[in-house]
Amino acid sequence: MLAPATASLPAFTALLFGLSGCLVDFGAQAGTRVAVDQSTENLHPHTEATPGAINALQGLSRKGIPCAWLDELPESISQVLAEPLQPWIKAAPRASASWPAPDACWQALIGLKVAQLEGCVLISGDPRLLQSGLNAGLWTIGLASCGPLCGLSPEQWQALTHLEREQRRGQATVQLYKLGVHSVIDHLGELEYCLSDIALRRSKGEKP
Amino acid sequence: MLAPATASLPAFTALLFGLSGCLVDFGAQAGTRVAVDQSTENLHPHTEATPGAINALQGLSRKGIPCAWLDELPESISQVLAEPLQPWIKAAPRASASWPAPDACWQALIGLKVAQLEGCVLISGDPRLLQSGLNAGLWTIGLASCGPLCGLSPEQWQALTHLEREQRRGQATVQLYKLGVHSVIDHLGELEYCLSDIALRRSKGEKP
Repeated sequence: MLAPATASLPAFTALLFGLSGCLVDFGAQAGTRVAVDQSTENLHPHTEATPGAINALQGLSRKGIPCAWLDELPESISQVLAEPLQPWIKAAPRASASWPAPDACWQALIGLKVAQLEGCVLISGDPRLLQSGLNAGLWTIGLASCGPLCGLSPEQWQALTHLEREQRRGQATVQLYKLGVHSVIDHLGELEYCLSDIALRRSKGEKP
Repeated sequence: MLAPATASLPAFTALLFGLSGCLVDFGAQAGTRVAVDQSTENLHPHTEATPGAINALQGLSRKGIPCAWLDELPESISQVLAEPLQPWIKAAPRASASWPAPDACWQALIGLKVAQLEGCVLISGDPRLLQSGLNAGLWTIGLASCGPLCGLSPEQWQALTHLEREQRRGQATVQLYKLGVHSVIDHLGELEYCLSDIALRRSKGEKP
Protein backbone atom coordinates (compact mmCIF):
# COMPACT_ATOMS: atom_id res chain seq x y z
CA MET A 1 0.00 0.00 0.00
CA LEU A 2 1.26 3.49 -0.78
CA ALA A 3 1.87 5.96 2.02
CA PRO A 4 -0.81 8.67 2.25
CA ALA A 5 -0.08 11.81 0.24
CA THR A 6 0.89 14.45 2.82
CA ALA A 7 -0.34 17.22 0.53
CA SER A 8 -3.94 16.07 0.95
CA LEU A 9 -3.81 16.04 4.75
CA PRO A 10 -5.37 18.87 6.79
CA ALA A 11 -3.02 21.78 7.57
CA PHE A 12 -2.13 22.81 11.11
CA THR A 13 -3.57 26.01 12.52
CA ALA A 14 -0.87 26.88 15.08
CA LEU A 15 1.87 25.23 17.13
CA LEU A 16 2.73 26.05 20.74
CA PHE A 17 6.05 24.97 22.22
CA GLY A 18 7.47 24.76 25.70
CA LEU A 19 10.72 26.72 26.01
CA SER A 20 12.98 25.18 28.70
CA GLY A 21 13.30 21.42 28.15
CA CYS A 22 11.73 21.66 24.71
CA LEU A 23 13.19 24.25 22.29
CA VAL A 24 16.26 25.01 24.43
CA ASP A 25 17.80 23.83 27.70
CA PHE A 26 17.88 20.06 27.09
CA GLY A 27 17.05 18.50 30.46
CA ALA A 28 15.21 21.62 31.71
CA GLN A 29 17.89 22.46 34.26
CA ALA A 30 17.90 26.27 33.85
CA GLY A 31 15.12 26.77 36.39
CA THR A 32 16.88 24.62 39.01
CA ARG A 33 20.23 26.31 38.36
CA VAL A 34 18.79 29.79 38.89
CA ALA A 35 16.87 28.65 41.97
CA VAL A 36 20.18 27.55 43.47
CA ASP A 37 22.53 30.44 42.70
CA GLN A 38 19.93 33.22 42.20
CA SER A 39 21.71 34.52 39.15
CA THR A 40 20.99 34.63 35.46
CA GLU A 41 24.66 35.03 34.56
CA ASN A 42 25.35 31.31 34.17
CA LEU A 43 22.44 30.64 31.83
CA HIS A 44 24.57 30.45 28.71
CA PRO A 45 24.85 26.62 28.49
CA HIS A 46 21.05 26.36 28.70
CA THR A 47 20.42 28.63 25.73
CA GLU A 48 21.60 25.93 23.34
CA ALA A 49 18.76 24.76 21.09
CA THR A 50 17.72 21.12 21.57
CA PRO A 51 18.29 18.57 18.77
CA GLY A 52 16.05 19.38 15.82
CA ALA A 53 14.60 22.59 17.32
CA ILE A 54 15.99 25.13 14.86
CA ASN A 55 15.25 22.92 11.85
CA ALA A 56 11.69 22.40 13.04
CA LEU A 57 11.11 26.14 13.58
CA GLN A 58 12.61 26.99 10.20
CA GLY A 59 10.35 24.46 8.48
CA LEU A 60 7.25 25.79 10.24
CA SER A 61 8.24 29.36 9.43
CA ARG A 62 8.59 28.43 5.71
CA LYS A 63 5.10 26.90 5.80
CA GLY A 64 3.71 30.04 7.48
CA ILE A 65 2.33 28.14 10.48
CA PRO A 66 2.00 30.52 13.47
CA CYS A 67 4.13 29.45 16.46
CA ALA A 68 4.71 30.71 20.01
CA TRP A 69 6.63 29.49 23.03
CA LEU A 70 5.30 29.32 26.61
CA ASP A 71 7.24 29.15 29.86
CA GLU A 72 6.66 29.78 33.55
CA LEU A 73 10.26 30.68 34.45
CA PRO A 74 10.77 34.31 35.52
CA GLU A 75 10.74 36.56 32.44
CA SER A 76 14.40 37.60 33.06
CA ILE A 77 15.41 33.96 32.55
CA SER A 78 13.07 32.92 29.76
CA GLN A 79 14.00 35.94 27.63
CA VAL A 80 17.69 34.96 27.86
CA LEU A 81 16.88 31.33 27.03
CA ALA A 82 14.78 32.32 24.01
CA GLU A 83 17.40 34.58 22.43
CA PRO A 84 18.72 32.00 19.91
CA LEU A 85 15.15 31.37 18.70
CA GLN A 86 14.22 34.99 18.05
CA PRO A 87 14.19 34.88 14.25
CA TRP A 88 11.56 32.12 14.16
CA ILE A 89 9.31 32.24 17.20
CA LYS A 90 7.91 34.72 19.72
CA ALA A 91 6.84 34.47 23.34
CA ALA A 92 3.18 33.91 24.15
CA PRO A 93 1.71 36.47 26.57
CA ARG A 94 2.17 35.60 30.26
CA ALA A 95 -0.89 33.67 31.46
CA SER A 96 -3.41 34.72 34.07
CA ALA A 97 -3.32 31.29 35.74
CA SER A 98 -0.52 28.75 36.19
CA TRP A 99 -0.33 25.42 34.38
CA PRO A 100 -2.13 23.02 34.34
CA ALA A 101 -4.99 25.56 33.94
CA PRO A 102 -5.85 25.89 30.24
CA ASP A 103 -5.51 29.72 30.31
CA ALA A 104 -1.88 29.85 29.13
CA CYS A 105 -2.67 27.86 25.98
CA TRP A 106 -5.84 29.81 25.13
CA GLN A 107 -4.07 33.13 25.72
CA ALA A 108 -1.21 31.99 23.48
CA LEU A 109 -3.69 31.12 20.71
CA ILE A 110 -5.46 34.47 21.16
CA GLY A 111 -2.03 36.17 20.91
CA LEU A 112 -1.42 34.36 17.62
CA LYS A 113 -4.89 35.45 16.39
CA VAL A 114 -5.78 31.90 15.39
CA ALA A 115 -9.20 31.41 13.83
CA GLN A 116 -9.99 28.03 15.39
CA LEU A 117 -8.91 25.44 17.95
CA GLU A 118 -8.98 22.70 15.33
CA GLY A 119 -5.47 21.89 14.17
CA CYS A 120 -3.70 23.54 17.13
CA VAL A 121 -0.89 21.51 18.73
CA LEU A 122 1.21 21.84 21.88
CA ILE A 123 4.70 20.30 22.06
CA SER A 124 6.45 20.08 25.43
CA GLY A 125 8.38 17.79 27.74
CA ASP A 126 6.76 19.26 30.85
CA PRO A 127 3.81 17.25 32.20
CA ARG A 128 2.20 20.37 33.72
CA LEU A 129 2.28 22.29 30.44
CA LEU A 130 1.08 19.22 28.54
CA GLN A 131 -1.83 18.94 30.99
CA SER A 132 -2.63 22.60 30.32
CA GLY A 133 -2.74 21.77 26.61
CA LEU A 134 -5.01 18.78 27.21
CA ASN A 135 -7.28 20.96 29.36
CA ALA A 136 -7.40 23.58 26.59
CA GLY A 137 -8.48 20.97 24.03
CA LEU A 138 -5.23 20.89 22.01
CA TRP A 139 -3.42 18.06 20.34
CA THR A 140 -0.41 17.36 22.54
CA ILE A 141 3.02 15.92 21.72
CA GLY A 142 5.22 14.92 24.64
CA LEU A 143 9.03 15.02 24.45
CA ALA A 144 10.58 12.13 26.33
CA SER A 145 14.32 12.74 26.60
CA CYS A 146 14.90 16.50 26.71
CA GLY A 147 12.23 17.54 29.24
CA PRO A 148 12.20 17.55 33.05
CA LEU A 149 11.17 13.87 33.32
CA CYS A 150 14.65 12.76 32.23
CA GLY A 151 16.10 16.03 33.50
CA LEU A 152 19.70 15.50 32.41
CA SER A 153 21.97 18.00 30.65
CA PRO A 154 23.25 16.96 27.19
CA GLU A 155 26.60 15.97 28.79
CA GLN A 156 24.94 13.89 31.50
CA TRP A 157 22.68 12.29 28.87
CA GLN A 158 25.58 11.39 26.60
CA ALA A 159 27.52 9.93 29.55
CA LEU A 160 24.80 7.29 30.04
CA THR A 161 25.07 3.90 28.38
CA HIS A 162 22.67 3.15 25.52
CA LEU A 163 20.66 0.89 27.85
CA GLU A 164 20.43 3.55 30.57
CA ARG A 165 19.18 6.11 28.03
CA GLU A 166 16.59 3.63 26.71
CA GLN A 167 15.34 2.92 30.24
CA ARG A 168 14.94 6.61 31.13
CA ARG A 169 13.36 7.40 27.76
CA GLY A 170 10.98 4.47 28.20
CA GLN A 171 9.91 5.56 31.68
CA ALA A 172 9.31 9.15 30.54
CA THR A 173 7.33 7.90 27.52
CA VAL A 174 5.04 5.81 29.72
CA GLN A 175 4.50 8.74 32.12
CA LEU A 176 3.59 11.05 29.24
CA TYR A 177 1.14 8.59 27.67
CA LYS A 178 -0.43 8.00 31.12
CA LEU A 179 -1.07 11.74 31.27
CA GLY A 180 -3.11 11.40 28.07
CA VAL A 181 -0.87 13.05 25.47
CA HIS A 182 -1.60 12.11 21.86
CA SER A 183 1.95 11.29 20.78
CA VAL A 184 5.38 10.99 22.36
CA ILE A 185 8.65 11.60 20.52
CA ASP A 186 12.20 11.68 21.76
CA HIS A 187 13.16 15.16 20.55
CA LEU A 188 12.15 17.77 17.97
CA GLY A 189 14.10 16.04 15.21
CA GLU A 190 11.11 13.66 15.05
CA LEU A 191 8.48 16.40 14.98
CA GLU A 192 7.78 16.43 11.25
CA TYR A 193 7.02 12.72 11.14
CA CYS A 194 4.86 13.02 14.27
CA LEU A 195 2.87 15.93 12.80
CA SER A 196 2.22 13.90 9.63
CA ASP A 197 0.86 11.12 11.82
CA ILE A 198 -1.45 13.51 13.69
CA ALA A 199 -2.58 15.01 10.36
CA LEU A 200 -3.48 11.50 9.22
CA ARG A 201 -5.41 10.86 12.45
CA ARG A 202 -7.24 14.17 11.96
CA SER A 203 -8.09 13.25 8.37
CA LYS A 204 -9.75 10.08 9.72
CA GLY A 205 -11.93 12.16 12.05
CA GLU A 206 -10.00 11.73 15.31
CA LYS A 207 -10.32 14.65 17.70
CA PRO A 208 -7.92 15.55 20.52
CA MET B 1 -35.28 -0.31 27.48
CA LEU B 2 -34.87 2.03 30.43
CA ALA B 3 -33.75 5.62 29.91
CA PRO B 4 -30.13 6.21 30.94
CA ALA B 5 -29.65 7.31 34.55
CA THR B 6 -28.82 11.04 34.34
CA ALA B 7 -26.87 10.83 37.60
CA SER B 8 -24.19 8.70 35.95
CA LEU B 9 -23.67 11.05 32.99
CA PRO B 10 -20.66 13.40 32.89
CA ALA B 11 -21.21 16.81 34.49
CA PHE B 12 -20.92 20.06 32.55
CA THR B 13 -17.92 22.31 33.18
CA ALA B 14 -19.43 25.68 32.21
CA LEU B 15 -22.22 27.16 30.10
CA LEU B 16 -21.95 30.30 27.97
CA PHE B 17 -25.09 32.05 26.73
CA GLY B 18 -25.82 34.70 24.18
CA LEU B 19 -27.69 37.66 25.70
CA SER B 20 -29.90 39.36 23.08
CA GLY B 21 -31.99 36.76 21.24
CA CYS B 22 -31.13 34.08 23.77
CA LEU B 23 -31.62 34.92 27.47
CA VAL B 24 -33.55 38.15 26.83
CA ASP B 25 -34.89 40.11 23.85
CA PHE B 26 -36.82 37.37 22.01
CA GLY B 27 -36.21 38.06 18.32
CA ALA B 28 -32.96 39.97 18.97
CA GLN B 29 -34.48 43.32 17.99
CA ALA B 30 -32.79 45.50 20.65
CA GLY B 31 -29.70 46.12 18.52
CA THR B 32 -31.77 47.17 15.50
CA ARG B 33 -34.02 49.38 17.62
CA VAL B 34 -31.07 51.27 19.10
CA ALA B 35 -29.37 51.54 15.70
CA VAL B 36 -32.52 53.29 14.43
CA ASP B 37 -33.36 55.77 17.21
CA GLN B 38 -29.89 56.03 18.83
CA SER B 39 -31.34 55.83 22.32
CA THR B 40 -31.31 53.27 25.09
CA GLU B 41 -34.48 54.67 26.66
CA ASN B 42 -36.85 52.38 24.80
CA LEU B 43 -35.07 49.17 25.66
CA HIS B 44 -37.56 48.11 28.31
CA PRO B 45 -39.59 45.63 26.19
CA HIS B 46 -36.39 43.86 25.21
CA THR B 47 -35.29 43.19 28.79
CA GLU B 48 -37.98 40.53 29.16
CA ALA B 49 -36.45 37.09 29.69
CA THR B 50 -37.13 34.59 26.89
CA PRO B 51 -39.28 31.48 27.57
CA GLY B 52 -37.48 29.14 29.96
CA ALA B 53 -34.47 31.46 30.52
CA ILE B 54 -34.94 32.22 34.22
CA ASN B 55 -35.85 28.60 35.06
CA ALA B 56 -32.78 27.37 33.21
CA LEU B 57 -30.43 29.82 34.97
CA GLN B 58 -31.95 28.98 38.37
CA GLY B 59 -31.44 25.27 37.74
CA LEU B 60 -27.83 25.76 36.67
CA SER B 61 -27.18 27.99 39.67
CA ARG B 62 -28.56 25.30 42.02
CA LYS B 63 -26.22 22.75 40.41
CA GLY B 64 -23.27 25.16 40.81
CA ILE B 65 -22.43 25.16 37.09
CA PRO B 66 -20.52 28.36 36.19
CA CYS B 67 -22.34 30.49 33.60
CA ALA B 68 -21.65 33.75 31.75
CA TRP B 69 -23.35 35.71 28.98
CA LEU B 70 -21.67 37.19 25.91
CA ASP B 71 -22.85 39.96 23.63
CA GLU B 72 -21.44 42.38 21.08
CA LEU B 73 -24.00 45.17 21.56
CA PRO B 74 -22.58 48.38 23.06
CA GLU B 75 -22.06 47.92 26.81
CA SER B 76 -24.63 50.63 27.60
CA ILE B 77 -27.28 48.46 25.93
CA SER B 78 -26.20 45.01 27.05
CA GLN B 79 -25.99 46.07 30.70
CA VAL B 80 -29.63 47.27 30.56
CA LEU B 81 -30.73 44.07 28.81
CA ALA B 82 -28.98 41.88 31.38
CA GLU B 83 -30.49 43.55 34.45
CA PRO B 84 -33.26 40.96 35.02
CA LEU B 85 -30.66 38.17 34.96
CA GLN B 86 -28.29 39.66 37.53
CA PRO B 87 -28.94 37.26 40.39
CA TRP B 88 -27.96 34.22 38.29
CA ILE B 89 -25.43 35.12 35.63
CA LYS B 90 -22.64 37.61 34.98
CA ALA B 91 -21.18 39.18 31.84
CA ALA B 92 -18.13 37.63 30.26
CA PRO B 93 -15.24 40.07 29.71
CA ARG B 94 -15.37 42.00 26.42
CA ALA B 95 -13.42 40.08 23.80
CA SER B 96 -10.29 41.19 21.98
CA ALA B 97 -11.67 40.08 18.60
CA SER B 98 -15.20 40.01 17.17
CA TRP B 99 -17.23 36.86 16.56
CA PRO B 100 -16.77 34.46 14.80
CA ALA B 101 -13.18 34.53 16.17
CA PRO B 102 -12.92 32.08 19.08
CA ASP B 103 -11.42 34.72 21.43
CA ALA B 104 -14.73 35.75 23.05
CA CYS B 105 -15.51 32.18 24.11
CA TRP B 106 -11.99 31.43 25.41
CA GLN B 107 -11.90 34.74 27.31
CA ALA B 108 -15.31 33.96 28.83
CA LEU B 109 -14.03 30.55 29.99
CA ILE B 110 -10.86 32.15 31.40
CA GLY B 111 -13.09 34.66 33.22
CA LEU B 112 -15.05 31.77 34.76
CA LYS B 113 -11.75 30.11 35.78
CA VAL B 114 -12.78 26.81 34.19
CA ALA B 115 -10.29 23.95 34.51
CA GLN B 116 -10.91 22.40 31.09
CA LEU B 117 -12.61 22.81 27.72
CA GLU B 118 -14.27 19.41 28.05
CA GLY B 119 -17.91 19.81 29.05
CA CYS B 120 -18.16 23.50 28.09
CA VAL B 121 -21.25 24.49 26.10
CA LEU B 122 -22.39 27.61 24.23
CA ILE B 123 -26.09 28.35 23.76
CA SER B 124 -27.14 31.08 21.34
CA GLY B 125 -29.49 31.93 18.49
CA ASP B 126 -26.85 34.02 16.70
CA PRO B 127 -24.96 32.21 13.92
CA ARG B 128 -21.86 34.41 14.40
CA LEU B 129 -21.63 33.65 18.12
CA LEU B 130 -22.33 29.96 17.48
CA GLN B 131 -19.50 29.94 14.92
CA SER B 132 -17.22 31.50 17.54
CA GLY B 133 -18.15 28.64 19.89
CA LEU B 134 -17.45 26.06 17.19
CA ASN B 135 -14.10 27.71 16.46
CA ALA B 136 -13.27 27.63 20.19
CA GLY B 137 -13.99 23.88 20.38
CA LEU B 138 -17.20 24.11 22.45
CA TRP B 139 -20.37 22.09 22.30
CA THR B 140 -22.94 24.39 20.70
CA ILE B 141 -26.71 24.55 21.04
CA GLY B 142 -28.60 26.73 18.56
CA LEU B 143 -31.89 28.44 19.43
CA ALA B 144 -34.25 28.46 16.48
CA SER B 145 -37.17 30.74 17.28
CA CYS B 146 -35.90 33.48 19.61
CA GLY B 147 -32.66 34.47 17.84
CA PRO B 148 -31.98 36.80 14.91
CA LEU B 149 -32.74 34.14 12.24
CA CYS B 150 -36.47 34.36 13.01
CA GLY B 151 -36.01 37.90 14.31
CA LEU B 152 -39.57 38.55 15.44
CA SER B 153 -40.70 40.12 18.71
CA PRO B 154 -42.91 37.93 20.97
CA GLU B 155 -45.99 39.81 19.71
CA GLN B 156 -45.06 39.37 16.04
CA TRP B 157 -44.26 35.69 16.70
CA GLN B 158 -47.60 35.07 18.39
CA ALA B 159 -49.44 36.83 15.58
CA LEU B 160 -48.24 34.20 13.11
CA THR B 161 -50.31 31.13 12.36
CA HIS B 162 -49.07 27.79 13.68
CA LEU B 163 -47.98 26.85 10.16
CA GLU B 164 -46.07 30.11 9.63
CA ARG B 165 -44.23 29.61 12.92
CA GLU B 166 -43.35 26.03 11.99
CA GLN B 167 -41.98 27.16 8.62
CA ARG B 168 -39.75 29.88 10.11
CA ARG B 169 -38.60 27.60 12.93
CA GLY B 170 -37.80 24.88 10.39
CA GLN B 171 -35.78 27.23 8.18
CA ALA B 172 -33.80 28.55 11.16
CA THR B 173 -33.16 24.99 12.38
CA VAL B 174 -31.77 23.93 9.02
CA GLN B 175 -29.52 27.02 8.87
CA LEU B 176 -28.16 26.32 12.36
CA TYR B 177 -27.45 22.65 11.62
CA LYS B 178 -25.75 23.66 8.35
CA LEU B 179 -23.44 25.86 10.43
CA GLY B 180 -22.39 22.73 12.30
CA VAL B 181 -24.02 23.22 15.72
CA HIS B 182 -24.43 20.07 17.79
CA SER B 183 -28.10 20.53 18.73
CA VAL B 184 -30.94 22.89 17.92
CA ILE B 185 -33.80 23.66 20.27
CA ASP B 186 -36.64 26.10 20.00
CA HIS B 187 -36.08 28.03 23.23
CA LEU B 188 -34.43 27.64 26.64
CA GLY B 189 -37.43 25.74 28.04
CA GLU B 190 -35.97 22.75 26.17
CA LEU B 191 -32.42 23.25 27.46
CA GLU B 192 -32.45 20.66 30.23
CA TYR B 193 -33.51 17.85 27.91
CA CYS B 194 -30.96 18.97 25.32
CA LEU B 195 -28.14 19.01 27.89
CA SER B 196 -29.06 15.47 28.96
CA ASP B 197 -28.80 14.39 25.35
CA ILE B 198 -25.35 16.01 24.97
CA ALA B 199 -24.25 14.40 28.26
CA LEU B 200 -25.29 11.03 26.83
CA ARG B 201 -23.36 11.71 23.61
CA ARG B 202 -20.31 12.70 25.71
CA SER B 203 -20.61 9.50 27.76
CA LYS B 204 -20.42 7.55 24.49
CA GLY B 205 -17.14 9.31 23.60
CA GLU B 206 -18.46 11.91 21.16
CA LYS B 207 -16.40 15.12 21.05
CA PRO B 208 -17.58 18.52 19.83
